[in-house]
Amino acid sequence: MKLAERISNLGTETAFAVSLAASAWASKGNKIYPFHLGDLNFPTAPHIVEALNKAIKDGKTGYCPAAGIPELREALAEDVGNRRNLNFSPENVIIQPGGKPVITKFIQSLINPGDEVLYPNPGYPIYESQIDYFNGVAKPYRYFPSPSGFSIDLDQIRSLITPKTKAIIYNDLQNPNGAESTDEEREALAKIAIENDLFVLSDEAYFEMRFSGKSKSIAQYPGMLERTVILYTFSKKFAMTGWRLGAAIVPTELASTMAKLNNNDESCTSHITQYAGVAAIRGDQSFLPVMLDALKERRDTALGYLRQIEGIDVHQPEAGFYLFPEVSKLLQRKGFRDVTQLMEDSLHKTGVSFCTRMHFGSPQPNEELQYLRLAFSGISKEEISEGLTKFRDWLA
Amino acid sequence: MKLAERISNLGTETAFAVSLAASAWASKGNKIYPFHLGDLNFPTAPHIVEALNKAIKDGKTGYCPAAGIPELREALAEDVGNRRNLNFSPENVIIQPGGKPVITKFIQSLINPGDEVLYPNPGYPIYESQIDYFNGVAKPYRYFPSPSGFSIDLDQIRSLITPKTKAIIYNDLQNPNGAESTDEEREALAKIAIENDLFVLSDEAYFEMRFSGKSKSIAQYPGMLERTVILYTFSKKFAMTGWRLGAAIVPTELASTMAKLNNNDESCTSHITQYAGVAAIRGDQSFLPVMLDALKERRDTALGYLRQIEGIDVHQPEAGFYLFPEVSKLLQRKGFRDVTQLMEDSLHKTGVSFCTRMHFGSPQPNEELQYLRLAFSGISKEEISEGLTKFRDWLA
Repeated sequence: MKLAERISNLGTETAFAVSLAASAWASKGNKIYPFHLGDLNFPTAPHIVEALNKAIKDGKTGYCPAAGIPELREALAEDVGNRRNLNFSPENVIIQPGGKPVITKFIQSLINPGDEVLYPNPGYPIYESQIDYFNGVAKPYRYFPSPSGFSIDLDQIRSLITPKTKAIIYNDLQNPNGAESTDEEREALAKIAIENDLFVLSDEAYFEMRFSGKSKSIAQYPGMLERTVILYTFSKKFAMTGWRLGAAIVPTELASTMAKLNNNDESCTSHITQYAGVAAIRGDQSFLPVMLDALKERRDTALGYLRQIEGIDVHQPEAGFYLFPEVSKLLQRKGFRDVTQLMEDSLHKTGVSFCTRMHFGSPQPNEELQYLRLAFSGISKEEISEGLTKFRDWLA
Repeated sequence: MKLAERISNLGTETAFAVSLAASAWASKGNKIYPFHLGDLNFPTAPHIVEALNKAIKDGKTGYCPAAGIPELREALAEDVGNRRNLNFSPENVIIQPGGKPVITKFIQSLINPGDEVLYPNPGYPIYESQIDYFNGVAKPYRYFPSPSGFSIDLDQIRSLITPKTKAIIYNDLQNPNGAESTDEEREALAKIAIENDLFVLSDEAYFEMRFSGKSKSIAQYPGMLERTVILYTFSKKFAMTGWRLGAAIVPTELASTMAKLNNNDESCTSHITQYAGVAAIRGDQSFLPVMLDALKERRDTALGYLRQIEGIDVHQPEAGFYLFPEVSKLLQRKGFRDVTQLMEDSLHKTGVSFCTRMHFGSPQPNEELQYLRLAFSGISKEEISEGLTKFRDWLA
């Protein structure tokens, strides 16, 4: 069976291999401490489930418009707009089966073969996969450690831009490194986008998943709204990863194209799930601070243990649920060949399972520092303590 | 905002414009008889809803594997296989958010730019849209009226095949014309596929939606299994159109590619919905005959009225929920310019809203007969009587 050639350009999330390895090890009777998956082990709030059932009872089990039900588009226009001091109309909101479809639909809508797209590396691997798949030219930009955690190398970004550059993908409150832009950095990026007439995909999956401070969108800067697509998702804030509900917040001119892609790709997002989404946005919001408190405790617990380990340097993120410890000195001290060996040995010696920087794109030239990525979204505080005690003692 | 050039190759379902026109007319206080949409106005069975809620309670709200949960892949491998006398393993089943995603993923996996794909016209418009979008060459094949309803013009198909032909899309129990292949026709098609080494996308959305007889899959013929992708959907049989749940049943060699496309496009299909799907397949099946009885009554009622109209010739389909009346003589008798004028006038004079052949691809050269398409899936028997009485009297 000869596959189409384009398939050879399609990437994937190699992090799933880490899950498989962990499951395989667990199935042999070993205890696993799952720090590898960016999934949430919190229940979805009851009023959201009730709204789903009401929709079924009300017979909302048929098709709905490709762009989504008006009620959800209105709710999101208002909510996403209010939180960013921006005005969106329901026409700007195109409902998607998750946040991820926004990536492929952004690329498909705006990038011609040969167009260059800047994307963060380390970063969510599907950015690069989709740029490559649709024959764009994927150009990675890098981060460097800074007092605020990680900063984007703006000089590198400027040097990467050519007349063929069409777009930049930006993931503030970043996965995997937890980086949050300073106002200055975000403004500088906006300036670069405007000066070079670039589209921006702003992946704001973690916008409301923060422990202190306030998020800001790059779409808020003057001249940015008309060139920015916001990736919105219900996955994190409402603990609905597996429900698959999200939205593209798009400039009006892009709305009908996004809806047409929906019509071709999946007709519409689950109709009943969209009513659950309305309840999530309009209903009781008391669930989020409770979940964030729990996540913060987990973060602090994990940080406490990691900082006891000689040769680990780890920043405290104020948003998201990832730690991105730098382990170059640890590798040297303990004689590990690389982060992959550390990862594999940790699983088999301690049960502590995590990803590494290698799951988030190929290292850039001259990249010397070595990183792990630990997610604290799918593991309890108690298990964090137990697992990281073993991990610490093993590395003592 | 300059869109990517590929977007100009993207088609859509123009039938949605018919819905919009009907809604607009209804919003002015007019009574509508909705024969335009292939949607079902039956509730989803309670045990399916219960399974959805159990999954939520059990915390199945996180991500699941891109290819789907093992339970659903197993259930479908067994059920789809048994109904076709074929052996599938769970690895052959790649869960999708609806049947429609199978179309784009089939094209993406197997068709290179310039490859020719034969597709039915009239037919479901997304076939042509996706072939064009991924730079294949879309070559329509036609049907002609025959004692069994409609037959595929096999001589035309043979004449269309060139060394660049890679695949044929086949929709037995067809939308819009209700055509069902005779055994001879299906076998001849299988022979053509094998002799010319073609892949087949077999859209089997209506496989179990029949009033008499037994469906057969083209995958059942020797040599076909390894070149056929079956489009399976929960939409029709379980009255779950808006839930968005389906599957691609694929040769083993294609499985990992399909799963990789899932990973890129939407991560996975709704995890909780997949448990509902397991209950649908494994649970009480008494709902289907009840729904089919109701649909058969609707079919017979609609046929009764349509056959009272001079100049309409309409075949009785034994599967699906579409009537495809030929109206060439009616247009002549009543002086309608074309089917579009008949459709528009009918809406405004009688409230009877339907699609025409024009919503299912551009007419082929020398196509002379004129057709309407009436769906009886989303309208009660009583409303069928009331609406088609008006329609008949208006055309007297």
